[in-house]
Amino acid sequence: MSLLNDFEWRYATKKFDTSKKVEQSLVDKIVEAAWLAPTSSGLQPFKVITITNQELKDKILPIAFGQTIVADCSHLLVFAAWDRYTEERINHIYSLITQGRNQPADKYKNYTDRLKEIYLKQTAAENFAHTARQAYIGMSFAMAEAAVLKVDSTPMEGFDTAQLDELLELKSKGLKSVLMLPIGYRDESNDWLSKLAKIRHPKDEFTFEIK
Amino acid sequence: MSLLNDFEWRYATKKFDTSKKVEQSLVDKIVEAAWLAPTSSGLQPFKVITITNQELKDKILPIAFGQTIVADCSHLLVFAAWDRYTEERINHIYSLITQGRNQPADKYKNYTDRLKEIYLKQTAAENFAHTARQAYIGMSFAMAEAAVLKVDSTPMEGFDTAQLDELLELKSKGLKSVLMLPIGYRDESNDWLSKLAKIRHPKDEFTFEIK
Repeated sequence: MSLLNDFEWRYATKKFDTSKKVEQSLVDKIVEAAWLAPTSSGLQPFKVITITNQELKDKILPIAFGQTIVADCSHLLVFAAWDRYTEERINHIYSLITQGRNQPADKYKNYTDRLKEIYLKQTAAENFAHTARQAYIGMSFAMAEAAVLKVDSTPMEGFDTAQLDELLELKSKGLKSVLMLPIGYRDESNDWLSKLAKIRHPKDEFTFEIK
Repeated sequence: MSLLNDFEWRYATKKFDTSKKVEQSLVDKIVEAAWLAPTSSGLQPFKVITITNQELKDKILPIAFGQTIVADCSHLLVFAAWDRYTEERINHIYSLITQGRNQPADKYKNYTDRLKEIYLKQTAAENFAHTARQAYIGMSFAMAEAAVLKVDSTPMEGFDTAQLDELLELKSKGLKSVLMLPIGYRDESNDWLSKLAKIRHPKDEFTFEIK
């Protein structure tokens, strides 16, 4: 088995078929793939927010500079990362880890002390630069699972994150939006991109060996 | 089909079996997965470097703060992103795109003009913050493919990027290292992490719907 055919099949869908909705069981799998994604030190510093309400999706349309996929998709997934690391957040996940593994509560104390020493003296912006990167891993695992399930998805950076944070009241949750991933089914005949070849740099420019 | 079992199976391997090498055909698929990964505006601003030379891997060991996986793995993949966007780089990929799609050379001129307007007036550091994020998508697709191929992989941020850039002479190539992904086969009985449960935040903390 290999994912290469699925990764060839997937593309950044520009037009969704508004008549087709993704079954909830498939959406759950796509979100679960993001949930299983590895993150730096296992901190899992991001969340996935699902939006299906049409009125809310329509409100996001101008925030996404008019890109209709946010309104036309079946489910809009928002990947939002912790606005910063805190002692409480680090303690919480490591308390879940030691409990889940039946380990003494202080099993990783030296390790988490070191994490706190690094992250808590950084600025919130430095922390967020790091938490946001972890959201990319989660979104990528979600995209891979979607491709395997033959669900279309379009990774999106292009939106006003501050406006989205305000609309979704993310600040009070200690989150900042990073990415959106509309999912649904392609409207093949009305999507200008659906029939165009996927172009990448030639392999010998993309990858090389250092001996 | 679903990737969830593969994503459950994978974990950040801490000890590789040095007697087992990954077949080149599988390494090629893992790199190809990264090659197929989507990137912002299709710019594909990162590369994958493969290292198998033991002497070179041993030199990377102190750069990775003594994490033995960089020396014990079968193949060490380095994900390095463009140090900045340039007019030439943007023109190059869009020239490949129009040629590959048999489109007029100026087909995306308005679009690339806009990209240049945005990126070329940013600092190199701002550019790199963006190109580095794209490398995370590539690494994640590579990890997903590795998991499906039952090849172990360990995503790594923890190394001295400046030292690695110097060792691999990346600066002259206009690249900066972002991530490493050692791949190989787990040495299950000697890996302290191999039998420990994978712990994540409870699902209802990780994901929620906004209605």
